[in-house]
Amino acid sequence: MKRRNFLTATATAAATAAAASAFPAPALAQGTKQLKMVTTWPKNFPGLGTSPERIAVKIREATEGAIDIKVYAAGELVPPFDSFDAVSTGAADIYNGAEYYWQGKSKAFAFFTAVPFGMTANELNAWIYHGGGQALWDELSARFNLKPFMSSNTGTQWGGWFNKEVNTLEDLKGLTIRMPGLGGDALAKLGATVLTLPGGEIFPSLESGRIDATEWVGPWNDLAFGFYQVTKYYYWPGFHEPGAGLATVFNLDVWNDLTPSQQRIIEAVLGWENDYTYTEYLYHNSLALNTLTSEHGVVLRDFPDEVFDGFRRASIETVEEAVEEDPFNKRVYESFLETQRYTAEGLRYADAAYLQRR
Amino acid sequence: MKRRNFLTATATAAATAAAASAFPAPALAQGTKQLKMVTTWPKNFPGLGTSPERIAVKIREATEGAIDIKVYAAGELVPPFDSFDAVSTGAADIYNGAEYYWQGKSKAFAFFTAVPFGMTANELNAWIYHGGGQALWDELSARFNLKPFMSSNTGTQWGGWFNKEVNTLEDLKGLTIRMPGLGGDALAKLGATVLTLPGGEIFPSLESGRIDATEWVGPWNDLAFGFYQVTKYYYWPGFHEPGAGLATVFNLDVWNDLTPSQQRIIEAVLGWENDYTYTEYLYHNSLALNTLTSEHGVVLRDFPDEVFDGFRRASIETVEEAVEEDPFNKRVYESFLETQRYTAEGLRYADAAYLQRR
Repeated sequence: MKRRNFLTATATAAATAAAASAFPAPALAQGTKQLKMVTTWPKNFPGLGTSPERIAVKIREATEGAIDIKVYAAGELVPPFDSFDAVSTGAADIYNGAEYYWQGKSKAFAFFTAVPFGMTANELNAWIYHGGGQALWDELSARFNLKPFMSSNTGTQWGGWFNKEVNTLEDLKGLTIRMPGLGGDALAKLGATVLTLPGGEIFPSLESGRIDATEWVGPWNDLAFGFYQVTKYYYWPGFHEPGAGLATVFNLDVWNDLTPSQQRIIEAVLGWENDYTYTEYLYHNSLALNTLTSEHGVVLRDFPDEVFDGFRRASIETVEEAVEEDPFNKRVYESFLETQRYTAEGLRYADAAYLQRR
Repeated sequence: MKRRNFLTATATAAATAAAASAFPAPALAQGTKQLKMVTTWPKNFPGLGTSPERIAVKIREATEGAIDIKVYAAGELVPPFDSFDAVSTGAADIYNGAEYYWQGKSKAFAFFTAVPFGMTANELNAWIYHGGGQALWDELSARFNLKPFMSSNTGTQWGGWFNKEVNTLEDLKGLTIRMPGLGGDALAKLGATVLTLPGGEIFPSLESGRIDATEWVGPWNDLAFGFYQVTKYYYWPGFHEPGAGLATVFNLDVWNDLTPSQQRIIEAVLGWENDYTYTEYLYHNSLALNTLTSEHGVVLRDFPDEVFDGFRRASIETVEEAVEEDPFNKRVYESFLETQRYTAEGLRYADAAYLQRR
């Protein structure tokens, strides 16, 4: 799907939402709870935007309609980066987005999306489900009256789109690059100017020259935004998001007001969706990559070792500074690292060893 | 937990089950459905045995007790390898096990557990959820009045335990090895005598010398069975099960008799459990590996290239013969291979590339 279609679809959806609000709400069935989910994603964007819609359908069907979630794309109810505050204050009930967007509130949020040179999708889920990650995330979110769940993962993201080749660390200096999270902080250490822009603002910024480079996700998502129309160098793999976990987060009062069985249903739906989306990326990235290279003349490049080593040094420094800010952040980091040690060893003798020899 | 504990626990549970059956069933709450789940696993065996119990709890809680599943470990209600027939005929309602145990019914079942030199856990799930795998599996299972779901994955299994080093393909000749599925068929081509034994029979067979070698799962599970007490050479990685998917399978009439919302709840619980168990293995394998090497003197070995290449040749031949048996098997294989091509390319530029450079 072309980028222009997303803009049109979003505009139409916004108009429909505005028109609908002029009519009185329909009478609710006995016991039906209507909840508003805001997201940081364009309407129906592959994976990112379709997942919240699918979550709403799955929960509606599993609860026989007792929980009826209406999904608002970025900007439909609030601007994408106001999603956190909207749910924290109760203006909306649920958000679906990337936790590192809120690292201005606490750097610790970045650990629940992605850490540069940190864990892949499977490893991150090992931490959340088995290594104590969920309890730490609950503790952090409760400060803001929120209850978080992991509900999606993009897999290891690509390095991004650059308007010129990156052959040395010098080449990064003076570039303006869109990259959120701790990865962006690391790039800033290497002399780049770093911006965090919501997805929908990236293409116009690239087209106008406001930014020289951007990361987004990977072939499936990057094809949809049409970056190939402006830049041709597509770098792999990314250092910045080895497995970006995306979250579905409830207002804590709304969550506590659900019945125990509704809570269990939602946990299961979000847990399944987490793996369902990760494997969806895995399935679609290769097809999209073929379209990018054979139809759009995109040039693939992997980062030279010198550059990747520079990313590693800057990333470690960035993460260590972030955790020094606050004793809680340090607890999160130590727990994260403990799981990473276990999973790295587990993969080394099994899945990773096998993939190298297949 | 030591292997002996599993034998004791199993015996106690069997005695309890026998005693309980002497009493009349309690009156059922209105609308409560009691279902029997048989498994191919020892009672409370790490991951394999604990997952069915957790599935029962999650479904009970999410349905407010409307679906109440009682789990029977291997041998408690029927012998482990009778699980398929018990559920197919309606003697039990659900089984939890590995589909390749039924490749005597159709070789196609092996594709829904693991194919030698085939897909890893993530790739297999990409096929099941996004590449048409579920529809093919439904078609195969419906012949036997069954409805299958993927509900667990061990990750890439280890190569197994050998009573002597495997330095050349010659060393495999004359060995009696426990290995189920198409991987076992491949070993037979290389001159080994191959047995399929349920988990609970492996240790005594290894101890008595009935078998010279065995694969089971990986460090977490293999430590629990205590194989290190008999053999010392522990080989990695396995070629035979790159990501063994384990299934929860309903009698089709029982499944069709559930309400749509109950079906949606069960799908979600099993989908989450699938990733929950895979990441559980990932978390625990490294700790168990440390115990095996530092406390029990286990010696790690990776297969020499010549041996791994022999596994590859024999595996490809085995799989191609299996799919020639039946046009349906060929459809399954082609669908499986198509997804494997996509996911291998997706991983090559992303997760796998990152893990090599981390």
